[in-house]
Amino acid sequence: MSSHTAIGRTRWAIAEGYIPGWSNGPEPQMASHETCCILNAGGQPAQVSITVYFEDRGPAGPYTLTIEPRRTRHLRFNELADPEPIPADVPYASVIESDVPIVVQHTRLDSRQAENALMTTIAFAAD
Amino acid sequence: MSSHTAIGRTRWAIAEGYIPGWSNGPEPQMASHETCCILNAGGQPAQVSITVYFEDRGPAGPYTLTIEPRRTRHLRFNELADPEPIPADVPYASVIESDVPIVVQHTRLDSRQAENALMTTIAFAAD
Amino acid sequence: MSSHTAIGRTRWAIAEGYIPGWSNGPEPQMASHETCCILNAGGQPAQVSITVYFEDRGPAGPYTLTIEPRRTRHLRFNELADPEPIPADVPYASVIESDVPIVVQHTRLDSRQAENALMTTIAFAAD
Amino acid sequence: MSSHTAIGRTRWAIAEGYIPGWSNGPEPQMASHETCCILNAGGQPAQVSITVYFEDRGPAGPYTLTIEPRRTRHLRFNELADPEPIPADVPYASVIESDVPIVVQHTRLDSRQAENALMTTIAFAAD
Repeated sequence: MSSHTAIGRTRWAIAEGYIPGWSNGPEPQMASHETCCILNAGGQPAQVSITVYFEDRGPAGPYTLTIEPRRTRHLRFNELADPEPIPADVPYASVIESDVPIVVQHTRLDSRQAENALMTTIAFAAD
Repeated sequence: MSSHTAIGRTRWAIAEGYIPGWSNGPEPQMASHETCCILNAGGQPAQVSITVYFEDRGPAGPYTLTIEPRRTRHLRFNELADPEPIPADVPYASVIESDVPIVVQHTRLDSRQAENALMTTIAFAAD
Repeated sequence: MSSHTAIGRTRWAIAEGYIPGWSNGPEPQMASHETCCILNAGGQPAQVSITVYFEDRGPAGPYTLTIEPRRTRHLRFNELADPEPIPADVPYASVIESDVPIVVQHTRLDSRQAENALMTTIAFAAD
Repeated sequence: MSSHTAIGRTRWAIAEGYIPGWSNGPEPQMASHETCCILNAGGQPAQVSITVYFEDRGPAGPYTLTIEPRRTRHLRFNELADPEPIPADVPYASVIESDVPIVVQHTRLDSRQAENALMTTIAFAAD
Protein backbone atom coordinates (compact mmCIF):
# COMPACT_ATOMS: atom_id res chain seq x y z
CA MET A 1 0.00 0.00 0.00
CA SER A 2 1.69 3.12 -1.25
CA SER A 3 0.00 6.18 0.20
CA HIS A 4 1.53 8.82 -2.02
CA THR A 5 0.73 7.45 -5.47
CA ALA A 6 -1.45 9.58 -7.73
CA ILE A 7 -5.11 8.59 -7.66
CA GLY A 8 -8.00 9.73 -9.84
CA ARG A 9 -8.54 10.95 -13.36
CA THR A 10 -7.56 14.02 -15.40
CA ARG A 11 -11.04 15.15 -16.55
CA TRP A 12 -14.11 15.60 -14.36
CA ALA A 13 -17.56 17.14 -14.73
CA ILE A 14 -20.16 18.54 -12.31
CA ALA A 15 -23.53 19.05 -14.00
CA GLU A 16 -25.15 20.82 -11.03
CA GLY A 17 -24.01 24.28 -10.00
CA TYR A 18 -25.83 27.07 -8.22
CA ILE A 19 -24.63 29.75 -5.81
CA PRO A 20 -27.54 30.60 -3.50
CA GLY A 21 -28.41 34.29 -3.58
CA TRP A 22 -28.38 34.91 0.17
CA SER A 23 -27.26 33.45 3.52
CA ASN A 24 -28.04 33.15 7.23
CA GLY A 25 -25.62 32.57 10.11
CA PRO A 26 -22.04 33.44 11.08
CA GLU A 27 -19.47 34.09 8.30
CA PRO A 28 -17.50 32.46 6.75
CA GLN A 29 -18.61 28.96 7.82
CA MET A 30 -22.33 29.56 7.33
CA ALA A 31 -22.17 31.67 4.16
CA SER A 32 -23.98 29.83 1.37
CA HIS A 33 -21.31 28.34 -0.85
CA GLU A 34 -20.68 25.78 -3.56
CA THR A 35 -17.37 23.99 -3.28
CA CYS A 36 -15.21 22.01 -5.66
CA CYS A 37 -13.00 19.79 -3.47
CA ILE A 38 -9.89 18.58 -5.26
CA LEU A 39 -7.36 16.02 -4.03
CA ASN A 40 -3.90 15.75 -5.53
CA ALA A 41 -2.54 12.67 -3.76
CA GLY A 42 0.40 12.23 -6.12
CA GLY A 43 3.99 13.47 -6.08
CA GLN A 44 3.70 16.10 -8.84
CA PRO A 45 1.99 19.52 -8.77
CA ALA A 46 -1.41 19.54 -10.52
CA GLN A 47 -2.11 22.31 -13.03
CA VAL A 48 -5.89 22.57 -12.84
CA SER A 49 -8.20 24.36 -15.28
CA ILE A 50 -11.93 24.90 -14.64
CA THR A 51 -14.48 25.84 -17.34
CA VAL A 52 -17.96 26.95 -16.30
CA TYR A 53 -21.04 26.39 -18.52
CA PHE A 54 -24.35 28.25 -18.39
CA GLU A 55 -27.89 27.82 -19.75
CA ASP A 56 -28.04 30.89 -21.97
CA ARG A 57 -24.54 32.19 -22.67
CA GLY A 58 -21.13 30.81 -23.65
CA PRO A 59 -18.70 29.28 -21.12
CA ALA A 60 -16.61 31.26 -18.62
CA GLY A 61 -12.97 30.57 -17.89
CA PRO A 62 -10.68 28.87 -17.84
CA TYR A 63 -10.02 29.46 -14.16
CA THR A 64 -6.56 28.10 -13.39
CA LEU A 65 -4.85 27.01 -10.19
CA THR A 66 -1.99 24.85 -9.02
CA ILE A 67 -2.36 22.23 -6.30
CA GLU A 68 0.84 21.13 -4.68
CA PRO A 69 1.74 17.43 -4.35
CA ARG A 70 -0.05 15.56 -1.53
CA ARG A 71 -2.42 18.43 -0.84
CA THR A 72 -6.15 19.05 -1.12
CA ARG A 73 -7.89 22.27 -2.12
CA HIS A 74 -11.49 23.14 -1.26
CA LEU A 75 -12.33 25.84 -3.79
CA ARG A 76 -15.46 27.96 -3.39
CA PHE A 77 -17.00 28.83 -6.75
CA ASN A 78 -18.16 32.17 -5.33
CA GLU A 79 -14.51 33.15 -4.76
CA LEU A 80 -13.52 32.68 -8.43
CA ALA A 81 -12.74 36.12 -9.89
CA ASP A 82 -10.37 35.82 -12.84
CA PRO A 83 -11.38 36.04 -15.71
CA GLU A 84 -14.84 36.85 -14.24
CA PRO A 85 -16.94 36.05 -11.14
CA ILE A 86 -19.70 33.41 -11.24
CA PRO A 87 -23.05 35.18 -10.77
CA ALA A 88 -25.30 34.11 -7.88
CA ASP A 89 -28.78 32.65 -8.40
CA VAL A 90 -27.88 31.31 -11.90
CA PRO A 91 -27.63 27.60 -12.85
CA TYR A 92 -24.23 26.47 -14.10
CA ALA A 93 -22.10 23.35 -14.64
CA SER A 94 -18.35 22.82 -14.70
CA VAL A 95 -15.57 20.76 -16.22
CA ILE A 96 -12.34 20.33 -14.23
CA GLU A 97 -9.18 19.30 -16.08
CA SER A 98 -5.71 18.53 -14.74
CA ASP A 99 -2.37 17.46 -16.17
CA VAL A 100 -2.05 14.74 -13.49
CA PRO A 101 -4.69 12.51 -11.86
CA ILE A 102 -6.87 14.22 -9.24
CA VAL A 103 -10.13 13.43 -7.44
CA VAL A 104 -13.02 15.93 -7.54
CA GLN A 105 -16.05 16.16 -5.22
CA HIS A 106 -18.87 18.71 -5.29
CA THR A 107 -20.52 20.12 -2.14
CA ARG A 108 -23.06 22.84 -1.46
CA LEU A 109 -23.93 24.46 1.87
CA ASP A 110 -27.16 26.39 1.52
CA SER A 111 -28.00 28.73 4.40
CA ARG A 112 -30.71 30.80 2.77
CA GLN A 113 -33.12 29.71 5.48
CA ALA A 114 -32.42 29.68 9.20
CA GLU A 115 -31.04 26.13 9.17
CA ASN A 116 -28.38 25.08 6.69
CA ALA A 117 -28.73 22.27 4.14
CA LEU A 118 -25.90 20.19 2.68
CA MET A 119 -25.36 18.07 -0.39
CA THR A 120 -22.36 16.33 -1.92
CA THR A 121 -21.36 13.93 -4.68
CA ILE A 122 -18.21 12.64 -6.26
CA ALA A 123 -18.01 14.31 -9.67
CA PHE A 124 -18.28 12.38 -12.95
CA ALA A 125 -14.88 10.93 -13.85
CA ALA A 126 -14.28 10.78 -17.59
CA ASP A 127 -12.51 7.71 -18.92
CA MET B 1 -6.39 20.50 -22.12
CA SER B 2 -9.25 21.07 -24.55
CA SER B 3 -12.19 22.62 -22.73
CA HIS B 4 -14.83 22.13 -25.39
CA THR B 5 -14.55 18.43 -26.06
CA ALA B 6 -17.62 16.31 -25.37
CA ILE B 7 -17.56 14.63 -21.95
CA GLY B 8 -19.84 11.99 -20.49
CA ARG B 9 -21.95 9.11 -21.72
CA THR B 10 -25.09 8.71 -23.83
CA ARG B 11 -27.27 6.73 -21.39
CA TRP B 12 -27.89 7.58 -17.72
CA ALA B 13 -30.26 6.41 -14.99
CA ILE B 14 -31.64 7.92 -11.78
CA ALA B 15 -33.34 5.31 -9.58
CA GLU B 16 -34.69 7.82 -7.05
CA GLY B 17 -37.41 10.25 -7.98
CA TYR B 18 -40.06 11.98 -5.91
CA ILE B 19 -41.71 15.38 -6.22
CA PRO B 20 -42.67 16.53 -2.71
CA GLY B 21 -46.36 17.29 -2.39
CA TRP B 22 -46.04 20.74 -0.83
CA SER B 23 -43.60 23.62 -0.18
CA ASN B 24 -42.61 26.43 2.17
CA GLY B 25 -40.80 29.67 1.37
CA PRO B 26 -40.53 32.17 -1.51
CA GLU B 27 -41.16 30.98 -5.10
CA PRO B 28 -39.53 29.90 -7.34
CA GLN B 29 -36.26 29.27 -5.46
CA MET B 30 -37.84 27.59 -2.45
CA ALA B 31 -40.54 25.59 -4.23
CA SER B 32 -39.91 21.88 -3.63
CA HIS B 33 -38.40 20.51 -6.81
CA GLU B 34 -36.50 17.61 -8.28
CA THR B 35 -33.97 18.56 -10.90
CA CYS B 36 -32.14 16.71 -13.65
CA CYS B 37 -28.99 18.75 -14.38
CA ILE B 38 -27.54 18.01 -17.81
CA LEU B 39 -24.23 19.27 -19.22
CA ASN B 40 -23.50 19.22 -22.93
CA ALA B 41 -19.85 20.31 -23.00
CA GLY B 42 -19.28 19.27 -26.61
CA GLY B 43 -19.59 21.08 -29.91
CA GLN B 44 -22.79 19.41 -31.20
CA PRO B 45 -26.40 19.89 -30.03
CA ALA B 46 -27.65 17.08 -27.78
CA GLN B 47 -31.02 15.51 -28.60
CA VAL B 48 -32.13 14.28 -25.17
CA SER B 49 -34.94 11.84 -24.39
CA ILE B 50 -36.21 11.12 -20.86
CA THR B 51 -38.34 8.11 -19.89
CA VAL B 52 -39.98 8.01 -16.45
CA TYR B 53 -40.73 4.72 -14.63
CA PHE B 54 -43.24 4.13 -11.84
CA GLU B 55 -44.02 1.45 -9.26
CA ASP B 56 -47.47 0.44 -10.45
CA ARG B 57 -47.99 1.60 -14.04
CA GLY B 58 -46.12 1.65 -17.33
CA PRO B 59 -43.51 4.29 -18.20
CA ALA B 60 -44.26 7.89 -19.19
CA GLY B 61 -42.55 9.72 -22.01
CA PRO B 62 -40.41 10.10 -23.85
CA TYR B 63 -39.91 13.73 -22.88
CA THR B 64 -37.63 15.30 -25.47
CA LEU B 65 -35.44 18.38 -25.45
CA THR B 66 -32.43 19.82 -27.22
CA ILE B 67 -29.41 21.20 -25.39
CA GLU B 68 -27.21 23.50 -27.41
CA PRO B 69 -23.43 22.97 -27.62
CA ARG B 70 -21.44 24.13 -24.56
CA ARG B 71 -24.55 24.71 -22.50
CA THR B 72 -26.10 23.21 -19.36
CA ARG B 73 -29.79 22.70 -18.63
CA HIS B 74 -31.26 22.32 -15.14
CA LEU B 75 -34.60 20.66 -15.83
CA ARG B 76 -37.26 20.46 -13.11
CA PHE B 77 -39.26 17.24 -13.33
CA ASN B 78 -42.34 19.09 -12.05
CA GLU B 79 -42.23 21.29 -15.16
CA LEU B 80 -42.44 18.36 -17.59
CA ALA B 81 -45.83 18.49 -19.34
CA ASP B 82 -45.67 16.76 -22.72
CA PRO B 83 -46.81 13.99 -23.11
CA GLU B 84 -48.04 14.15 -19.46
CA PRO B 85 -47.06 15.76 -16.13
CA ILE B 86 -45.28 13.75 -13.42
CA PRO B 87 -47.63 13.42 -10.43
CA ALA B 88 -46.47 14.72 -7.03
CA ASP B 89 -46.05 12.45 -4.01
CA VAL B 90 -45.42 9.35 -6.19
CA PRO B 91 -42.09 7.45 -6.41
CA TYR B 92 -40.50 7.32 -9.86
CA ALA B 93 -37.20 6.69 -11.63
CA SER B 94 -35.80 7.93 -14.93
CA VAL B 95 -33.56 7.03 -17.85
CA ILE B 96 -31.90 9.86 -19.79
CA GLU B 97 -30.62 9.17 -23.30
CA SER B 98 -28.74 11.42 -25.71
CA ASP B 99 -27.27 11.15 -29.19
CA VAL B 100 -24.00 12.73 -27.99
CA PRO B 101 -22.14 12.40 -24.66
CA ILE B 102 -23.66 14.37 -21.76
CA VAL B 103 -23.26 14.40 -17.95
CA VAL B 104 -26.33 13.99 -15.72
CA GLN B 105 -26.72 14.90 -12.04
CA HIS B 106 -29.82 14.55 -9.86
CA THR B 107 -30.79 17.08 -7.15
CA ARG B 108 -33.80 17.55 -4.90
CA LEU B 109 -34.73 20.61 -2.84
CA ASP B 110 -37.41 19.68 -0.34
CA SER B 111 -39.12 22.58 1.40
CA ARG B 112 -42.10 20.78 2.85
CA GLN B 113 -41.02 21.84 6.32
CA ALA B 114 -39.93 25.34 7.34
CA GLU B 115 -36.27 24.73 6.51
CA ASN B 116 -35.23 23.25 3.18
CA ALA B 117 -33.29 20.03 2.68
CA LEU B 118 -31.01 19.19 -0.23
CA MET B 119 -29.61 16.06 -1.82
CA THR B 120 -27.63 15.36 -4.97
CA THR B 121 -25.80 12.58 -6.80
CA ILE B 122 -24.18 12.03 -10.14
CA ALA B 123 -26.52 9.69 -12.04
CA PHE B 124 -25.55 6.14 -13.02
CA ALA B 125 -23.59 6.22 -16.28
CA ALA B 126 -24.21 3.17 -18.44
CA ASP B 127 -21.23 1.70 -20.25
CA MET C 1 -32.55 5.42 -28.57
CA SER C 2 -34.32 2.38 -27.15
CA SER C 3 -36.07 3.31 -23.93
CA HIS C 4 -36.90 -0.17 -22.70
CA THR C 5 -33.50 -1.82 -22.82
CA ALA C 6 -32.05 -3.10 -19.54
CA ILE C 7 -29.66 -0.66 -17.89
CA GLY C 8 -27.36 -1.13 -14.91
CA ARG C 9 -25.45 -3.90 -13.24
CA THR C 10 -26.32 -7.08 -11.34
CA ARG C 11 -24.40 -6.43 -8.10
CA TRP C 12 -24.50 -3.24 -6.02
CA ALA C 13 -23.30 -2.17 -2.57
CA ILE C 14 -24.30 0.56 -0.10
CA ALA C 15 -21.73 0.97 2.68
CA GLU C 16 -23.81 3.44 4.72
CA GLY C 17 -26.96 2.34 6.45
CA TYR C 18 -28.73 3.66 9.52
CA ILE C 19 -32.40 3.83 10.45
CA PRO C 20 -32.89 6.87 12.71
CA GLY C 21 -34.42 5.96 16.06
CA TRP C 22 -37.20 8.53 16.03
CA SER C 23 -39.17 10.96 13.85
CA ASN C 24 -41.01 14.28 13.66
CA GLY C 25 -43.82 15.30 11.33
CA PRO C 26 -46.79 13.70 9.53
CA GLU C 27 -46.69 9.97 8.68
CA PRO C 28 -45.80 8.33 6.34
CA GLN C 29 -43.97 11.01 4.32
CA MET C 30 -42.06 12.47 7.25
CA ALA C 31 -41.26 9.25 9.11
CA SER C 32 -37.48 8.83 9.25
CA HIS C 33 -36.58 6.23 6.67
CA GLU C 34 -33.74 4.78 4.66
CA THR C 35 -34.66 3.80 1.13
CA CYS C 36 -33.13 1.54 -1.50
CA CYS C 37 -34.46 2.77 -4.85
CA ILE C 38 -34.25 0.14 -7.58
CA LEU C 39 -34.96 0.61 -11.27
CA ASN C 40 -35.62 -2.35 -13.57
CA ALA C 41 -35.78 -0.64 -16.98
CA GLY C 42 -35.53 -3.87 -18.94
CA GLY C 43 -38.09 -6.28 -20.35
CA GLN C 44 -37.59 -9.14 -17.87
CA PRO C 45 -38.65 -9.38 -14.20
CA ALA C 46 -35.75 -8.82 -11.77
CA GLN C 47 -35.28 -11.33 -8.95
CA VAL C 48 -33.59 -9.19 -6.30
CA SER C 49 -31.79 -10.39 -3.18
CA ILE C 50 -30.57 -8.04 -0.41
CA THR C 51 -28.02 -8.99 2.26
CA VAL C 52 -27.49 -6.69 5.25
CA TYR C 53 -24.15 -6.45 7.08
CA PHE C 54 -23.53 -5.20 10.63
CA GLU C 55 -20.59 -4.11 12.77
CA ASP C 56 -20.75 -6.81 15.42
CA ARG C 57 -22.81 -9.76 14.19
CA GLY C 58 -23.20 -11.86 11.06
CA PRO C 59 -25.27 -10.75 8.04
CA ALA C 60 -29.07 -10.76 7.87
CA GLY C 61 -31.06 -11.95 4.90
CA PRO C 62 -31.34 -12.58 2.12
CA TYR C 63 -34.38 -10.40 1.69
CA THR C 64 -35.94 -11.24 -1.66
CA LEU C 65 -38.29 -9.39 -3.95
CA THR C 66 -39.36 -9.32 -7.59
CA ILE C 67 -39.49 -6.13 -9.62
CA GLU C 68 -41.61 -6.29 -12.73
CA PRO C 69 -40.26 -5.17 -16.14
CA ARG C 70 -40.13 -1.38 -16.69
CA ARG C 71 -40.93 -0.63 -13.07
CA THR C 72 -39.14 1.01 -10.13
CA ARG C 73 -39.37 0.05 -6.47
CA HIS C 74 -38.54 2.37 -3.59
CA LEU C 75 -37.95 -0.04 -0.73
CA ARG C 76 -37.76 1.22 2.87
CA PHE C 77 -35.27 -0.76 4.93
CA ASN C 78 -37.43 -0.28 8.02
CA GLU C 79 -40.22 -2.23 6.30
CA LEU C 80 -38.10 -5.34 5.75
CA ALA C 81 -39.45 -8.11 7.97
CA ASP C 82 -38.59 -11.53 6.53
CA PRO C 83 -36.34 -13.19 7.70
CA GLU C 84 -35.91 -10.47 10.38
CA PRO C 85 -36.41 -6.70 10.81
CA ILE C 86 -33.44 -4.30 10.64
CA PRO C 87 -32.99 -2.73 14.09
CA ALA C 88 -33.13 1.07 14.41
CA ASP C 89 -30.15 3.13 15.63
CA VAL C 90 -27.63 0.49 14.46
CA PRO C 91 -25.08 0.99 11.62
CA TYR C 92 -25.40 -1.41 8.70
CA ALA C 93 -24.44 -1.86 5.05
CA SER C 94 -26.05 -3.78 2.22
CA VAL C 95 -25.37 -5.71 -0.97
CA ILE C 96 -28.09 -5.85 -3.62
CA GLU C 97 -27.98 -8.61 -6.24
CA SER C 98 -30.22 -9.25 -9.23
CA ASP C 99 -30.43 -11.78 -12.05
CA VAL C 100 -30.84 -8.96 -14.62
CA PRO C 101 -29.30 -5.47 -14.76
CA ILE C 102 -30.81 -2.93 -12.35
CA VAL C 103 -29.84 0.52 -11.04
CA VAL C 104 -29.67 1.15 -7.27
CA GLN C 105 -29.73 4.46 -5.39
CA HIS C 106 -29.64 5.04 -1.62
CA THR C 107 -31.61 7.80 0.13
CA ARG C 108 -32.24 8.74 3.76
CA LEU C 109 -34.86 11.12 5.12
CA ASP C 110 -34.01 11.96 8.74
CA SER C 111 -36.75 13.70 10.68
CA ARG C 112 -35.41 13.24 14.19
CA GLN C 113 -35.34 16.99 14.63
CA ALA C 114 -38.12 19.43 13.73
CA GLU C 115 -36.84 19.93 10.17
CA ASN C 116 -36.02 16.97 7.95
CA ALA C 117 -32.63 16.27 6.36
CA LEU C 118 -32.00 14.37 3.13
CA MET C 119 -29.10 12.55 1.55
CA THR C 120 -28.71 10.36 -1.52
CA THR C 121 -26.09 8.61 -3.64
CA ILE C 122 -25.99 6.16 -6.47
CA ALA C 123 -24.80 2.87 -4.97
CA PHE C 124 -21.47 1.28 -5.88
CA ALA C 125 -21.83 -0.76 -9.06
CA ALA C 126 -19.63 -3.84 -9.11
CA ASP C 127 -18.01 -4.73 -12.41
CA MET D 1 -26.14 -15.09 -6.46
CA SER D 2 -23.38 -15.52 -3.89
CA SER D 3 -23.92 -13.14 -1.01
CA HIS D 4 -20.55 -13.51 0.65
CA THR D 5 -18.19 -12.81 -2.24
CA ALA D 6 -15.89 -9.81 -1.90
CA ILE D 7 -17.20 -6.68 -3.59
CA GLY D 8 -15.50 -3.36 -4.27
CA ARG D 9 -12.02 -2.06 -4.90
CA THR D 10 -8.79 -1.76 -2.92
CA ARG D 11 -8.18 2.00 -3.27
CA TRP D 12 -10.69 4.78 -2.64
CA ALA D 13 -10.59 8.55 -2.29
CA ILE D 14 -12.81 11.17 -0.64
CA ALA D 15 -11.91 14.71 -1.74
CA GLU D 16 -14.27 16.44 0.72
CA GLY D 17 -13.56 16.37 4.43
CA TYR D 18 -14.50 18.75 7.20
CA ILE D 19 -15.32 18.18 10.87
CA PRO D 20 -17.75 20.93 11.94
CA GLY D 21 -16.48 22.93 14.87
CA TRP D 22 -19.56 22.67 17.05
CA SER D 23 -22.83 20.77 17.57
CA ASN D 24 -26.43 20.97 18.76
CA GLY D 25 -28.63 18.17 20.10
CA PRO D 26 -28.29 14.96 22.14
CA GLU D 27 -24.97 13.07 22.08
CA PRO D 28 -23.75 10.87 20.44
CA GLN D 29 -26.33 10.69 17.63
CA MET D 30 -26.54 14.43 17.05
CA ALA D 31 -22.88 15.33 17.52
CA SER D 32 -21.53 16.78 14.27
CA HIS D 33 -19.48 14.06 12.63
CA GLU D 34 -17.92 12.96 9.38
CA THR D 35 -18.06 9.24 8.75
CA CYS D 36 -16.20 6.84 6.49
CA CYS D 37 -18.48 3.81 6.06
CA ILE D 38 -16.59 0.71 4.96
CA LEU D 39 -18.09 -2.63 3.90
CA ASN D 40 -16.02 -5.80 3.82
CA ALA D 41 -18.47 -8.26 2.26
CA GLY D 42 -15.84 -10.90 1.54
CA GLY D 43 -14.53 -13.88 3.47
CA GLN D 44 -11.12 -12.45 4.46
CA PRO D 45 -10.27 -9.76 7.05
CA ALA D 46 -9.54 -6.36 5.48
CA GLN D 47 -6.38 -4.54 6.60
CA VAL D 48 -7.35 -0.92 6.02
CA SER D 49 -5.06 2.11 5.93
CA ILE D 50 -6.30 5.73 5.81
CA THR D 51 -4.14 8.72 4.82
CA VAL D 52 -5.48 12.25 5.41
CA TYR D 53 -4.46 15.21 3.21
CA PHE D 54 -4.65 18.91 4.08
CA GLU D 55 -4.45 22.25 2.27
CA ASP D 56 -1.33 23.62 3.89
CA ARG D 57 0.65 20.82 5.54
CA GLY D 58 1.80 17.29 4.74
CA PRO D 59 -0.46 14.23 5.12
CA ALA D 60 -1.40 12.61 8.43
CA GLY D 61 -1.48 8.89 9.03
CA PRO D 62 -1.62 6.17 8.12
CA TYR D 63 -4.49 5.31 10.42
CA THR D 64 -4.88 1.53 10.40
CA LEU D 65 -7.73 -0.78 11.28
CA THR D 66 -8.92 -4.31 10.60
CA ILE D 67 -12.45 -5.10 9.46
CA GLU D 68 -13.56 -8.66 9.98
CA PRO D 69 -15.08 -10.72 7.15
CA ARG D 70 -18.74 -9.95 6.34
CA ARG D 71 -18.80 -6.89 8.57
CA THR D 72 -19.20 -3.13 8.09
CA ARG D 73 -17.48 -0.36 10.02
CA HIS D 74 -18.77 3.20 10.29
CA LEU D 75 -15.68 5.14 11.31
CA ARG D 76 -15.97 8.72 12.57
CA PHE D 77 -13.00 10.83 11.48
CA ASN D 78 -13.25 12.82 14.72
CA GLU D 79 -12.50 9.64 16.68
CA LEU D 80 -9.20 8.99 14.89
CA ALA D 81 -6.37 9.52 17.41
CA ASP D 82 -3.29 7.52 16.41
CA PRO D 83 -0.92 8.88 15.12
CA GLU D 84 -2.73 12.23 15.60
CA PRO D 85 -6.30 13.60 15.80
CA ILE D 86 -7.89 15.36 12.81
CA PRO D 87 -8.43 19.01 13.74
CA ALA D 88 -11.97 20.46 13.57
CA ASP D 89 -12.89 23.33 11.22
CA VAL D 90 -10.08 22.45 8.76
CA PRO D 91 -10.61 21.14 5.18
CA TYR D 92 -9.12 17.72 4.47
CA ALA D 93 -9.34 14.81 2.03
CA SER D 94 -8.59 11.11 2.45
CA VAL D 95 -7.37 8.00 0.66
CA ILE D 96 -8.54 4.62 1.93
CA GLU D 97 -6.54 1.52 0.98
CA SER D 98 -7.19 -2.15 1.73
CA ASP D 99 -5.53 -5.47 0.96
CA VAL D 100 -8.88 -6.95 -0.13
CA PRO D 101 -11.85 -5.36 -1.97
CA ILE D 102 -14.02 -3.06 0.14
CA VAL D 103 -16.71 -0.44 -0.53
CA VAL D 104 -16.36 3.07 0.91
CA GLN D 105 -19.05 5.72 1.42
CA HIS D 106 -18.68 9.20 2.93
CA THR D 107 -21.32 10.82 5.15
CA ARG D 108 -21.51 14.02 7.20
CA LEU D 109 -24.04 14.96 9.86
CA ASP D 110 -23.77 18.66 10.59
CA SER D 111 -25.61 19.84 13.70
CA ARG D 112 -24.02 23.24 14.10
CA GLN D 113 -27.42 24.84 13.80
CA ALA D 114 -30.58 23.75 15.60
CA GLU D 115 -31.59 21.33 12.84
CA ASN D 116 -29.15 18.79 11.46
CA ALA D 117 -28.06 18.52 7.82
CA LEU D 118 -26.89 15.38 6.06
CA MET D 119 -24.85 14.54 2.99
CA THR D 120 -23.43 11.34 1.54
CA THR D 121 -21.66 9.97 -1.52
CA ILE D 122 -20.01 6.77 -2.60
CA ALA D 123 -16.27 7.50 -2.60
CA PHE D 124 -14.18 7.52 -5.80
CA ALA D 125 -13.12 3.97 -6.64
CA ALA D 126 -9.69 3.80 -8.26
CA ASP D 127 -9.25 1.34 -11.09
